[in-house]
Amino acid sequence: MESVSLHCTKCHKPFRADQAVFRCDACNEPLEAEEISKGRIREGNMLNQTIWERYGDFFPFLESGFKISLGEGFTPLAESRALAESLGMQGIYFKNESQNPTWSFKDRGTSAGIMHAKGLGYKRIGTVSTGNMATSVAAYGTASGMETFVLVSKGISQEKINPIAIYNPHLIKVDGDYGELYFESLRIGKENDIYFVNSDAPMRVEGSKTIAYEICEQLGFDMPDYVIVPTSAGGNIRGIEKGFREFRACGLIDRAPKIICAQALGCSPIYAAYKNGSEEISRAEDPHTIAHAIENPYPPSGNRVLKLLRQNGGISAAVSDEEILKAQALMAGEGIFGQPASAVPLAVVIKLKAEGILKGNEKIVCIVTGSGLKYTAALEMHELKSSECKLKELGNFIKNL
Amino acid sequence: MESVSLHCTKCHKPFRADQAVFRCDACNEPLEAEEISKGRIREGNMLNQTIWERYGDFFPFLESGFKISLGEGFTPLAESRALAESLGMQGIYFKNESQNPTWSFKDRGTSAGIMHAKGLGYKRIGTVSTGNMATSVAAYGTASGMETFVLVSKGISQEKINPIAIYNPHLIKVDGDYGELYFESLRIGKENDIYFVNSDAPMRVEGSKTIAYEICEQLGFDMPDYVIVPTSAGGNIRGIEKGFREFRACGLIDRAPKIICAQALGCSPIYAAYKNGSEEISRAEDPHTIAHAIENPYPPSGNRVLKLLRQNGGISAAVSDEEILKAQALMAGEGIFGQPASAVPLAVVIKLKAEGILKGNEKIVCIVTGSGLKYTAALEMHELKSSECKLKELGNFIKNL
Repeated sequence: MESVSLHCTKCHKPFRADQAVFRCDACNEPLEAEEISKGRIREGNMLNQTIWERYGDFFPFLESGFKISLGEGFTPLAESRALAESLGMQGIYFKNESQNPTWSFKDRGTSAGIMHAKGLGYKRIGTVSTGNMATSVAAYGTASGMETFVLVSKGISQEKINPIAIYNPHLIKVDGDYGELYFESLRIGKENDIYFVNSDAPMRVEGSKTIAYEICEQLGFDMPDYVIVPTSAGGNIRGIEKGFREFRACGLIDRAPKIICAQALGCSPIYAAYKNGSEEISRAEDPHTIAHAIENPYPPSGNRVLKLLRQNGGISAAVSDEEILKAQALMAGEGIFGQPASAVPLAVVIKLKAEGILKGNEKIVCIVTGSGLKYTAALEMHELKSSECKLKELGNFIKNL
Repeated sequence: MESVSLHCTKCHKPFRADQAVFRCDACNEPLEAEEISKGRIREGNMLNQTIWERYGDFFPFLESGFKISLGEGFTPLAESRALAESLGMQGIYFKNESQNPTWSFKDRGTSAGIMHAKGLGYKRIGTVSTGNMATSVAAYGTASGMETFVLVSKGISQEKINPIAIYNPHLIKVDGDYGELYFESLRIGKENDIYFVNSDAPMRVEGSKTIAYEICEQLGFDMPDYVIVPTSAGGNIRGIEKGFREFRACGLIDRAPKIICAQALGCSPIYAAYKNGSEEISRAEDPHTIAHAIENPYPPSGNRVLKLLRQNGGISAAVSDEEILKAQALMAGEGIFGQPASAVPLAVVIKLKAEGILKGNEKIVCIVTGSGLKYTAALEMHELKSSECKLKELGNFIKNL
């Protein structure tokens, strides 16, 4: 563990990775593990290999000690030729993160975070979330025998709580400003020996690197032009960008793809700052979008994401709920049913193509962050079709369709 | 395609695989593709390989022509050491089929069926189902550009229809005896050029073979003692048994594991026949179980399953809804949230251990057939815990837990 250090993404102040630190005590910006610039893929039969083994060179801080894997990662990259053709694009690929153990990308970072926490001697793990991350931490917490704390807001419905509660964590409904809870949890965690693996914790960012690594392998190291990431707190997009950056530093790829930070117009603080040319995000007022999974009015890694977009040549874009629903249906037409947030990248492709920002000769990877089954209420906003007939008339009914 | 033939599982009458045939016209029992006795695994980087490529030797009828994959298969086999210890078993493994593109094992057979159908020139695909199979066929049907027919019973709720309808198939609510629909669909399919890839269609059975192949690889070809399969129509258990049989015939494994056909007591026609020593199943009266996904009162492959259990040295067992719910919670404690039907194998382990049929020195693989998100209403039957506190009291609240 000595070989790795963390640093502040803003002031570059160094921190040691052999302790649980999440944000800079000087400027309150998120920390990041140092970039790995020497490493290779460890080939092997992936049915007998975890992502942590295959990409072990890129996770020196997880090398020794406790291992936890429920089979996260190694998710498919599905090419949709029909869709690319109809949209006039060179190539459209969906990285389907809904095929993780708790059906979202969160499992990668949760696994990394718990391994790090256990390595530091922690017996308690926690998170602040009401969605994918809560489910993921509850599942991996119990699977690794840790006492698990999931903090949700008081107003959450029983329907939303149930798929978290089945894993039997300490599930605490907190009455108060939910926005404060992210920062408050870090303080409480320190006092109570709970490692809070929140949305943009450094190890969660590290976990998301594996999405980039897999895309490189899946495309035969022939990089796409853009990778589009639905963005909330900013942890996932940071990890994906870092993954490509590291593979490039290691000489495994010639160039990194440009990253597109995709948000919903109803809650788009990063997009707003990007558009204004600001280096700092402002809190989004009155957030409301069907893409609940990315409805974060004040992303704790927002400033870091703005900076990496500038460094990477990436951009930000935002789409309306109507565009999101349309893209969700279009993606389902390719056999992939993502939650509304996961349809945001495809909606962005359509929008940027219409605006001429995408020319049509690009190859694009859309990150499908979680399963459509996570939020079935969104289905009620679609015009879904069915018909009805009597069994004895079925043959004729089908003939006349 | 000429090299493969089908035969009746009862009277052994041969059929050609280059046409869409599903059941024997002489004795109305299901057909099965001939056993492959020569083949090897085609090693490769699985991030760039489908299960159809890796195990291509075992699918000669899919070798040429149209390919469709959304990234089905290559699902994890998660070992639960803590659970094995607490139950006094040598080893317990969960084959997590919820990590498929539509979050159930059905995607394997659907993909195989559609490739076969397209190879025969079909432009229309169909199924009779209200659950996992309907979703799977709707997804793969649209992804492969086929006109897709999903026949459901008239009484189905909108909530259950929505996650199927999002893929936009012809979704037809049929008013009549739903039990008849399986057979009626085959007749209507023939008349209307629709390939009905129903629950135990030969190609669906073929698709399920890959579950066995992967387990062999994942355990380093060191076979478990038992593989427990939640059983409804019988297609999946037939495929898994055939997969092990073929790998044994090819010399890839020394012995095949014994198969346990697991049912819910509320609908257990195969278990009932097994217990009575009968060679034929009888229709289950008044079926009712929380494990809806395996609530089939008259499994079309029931007789075939009885026969293969005798040949394989396998057994059948059935558990109550109470035992199923308990096992569902226990499995969630290992980080794996399966639908109620998927908890049936673990409930069977517990029951057979208590009865002394399992001694404790066995290694067991439980097939987790589908995601718990498929049927969240079951969560309301659990006693799920949560607590509540004010933000400013959170620190003390946690200290006093």
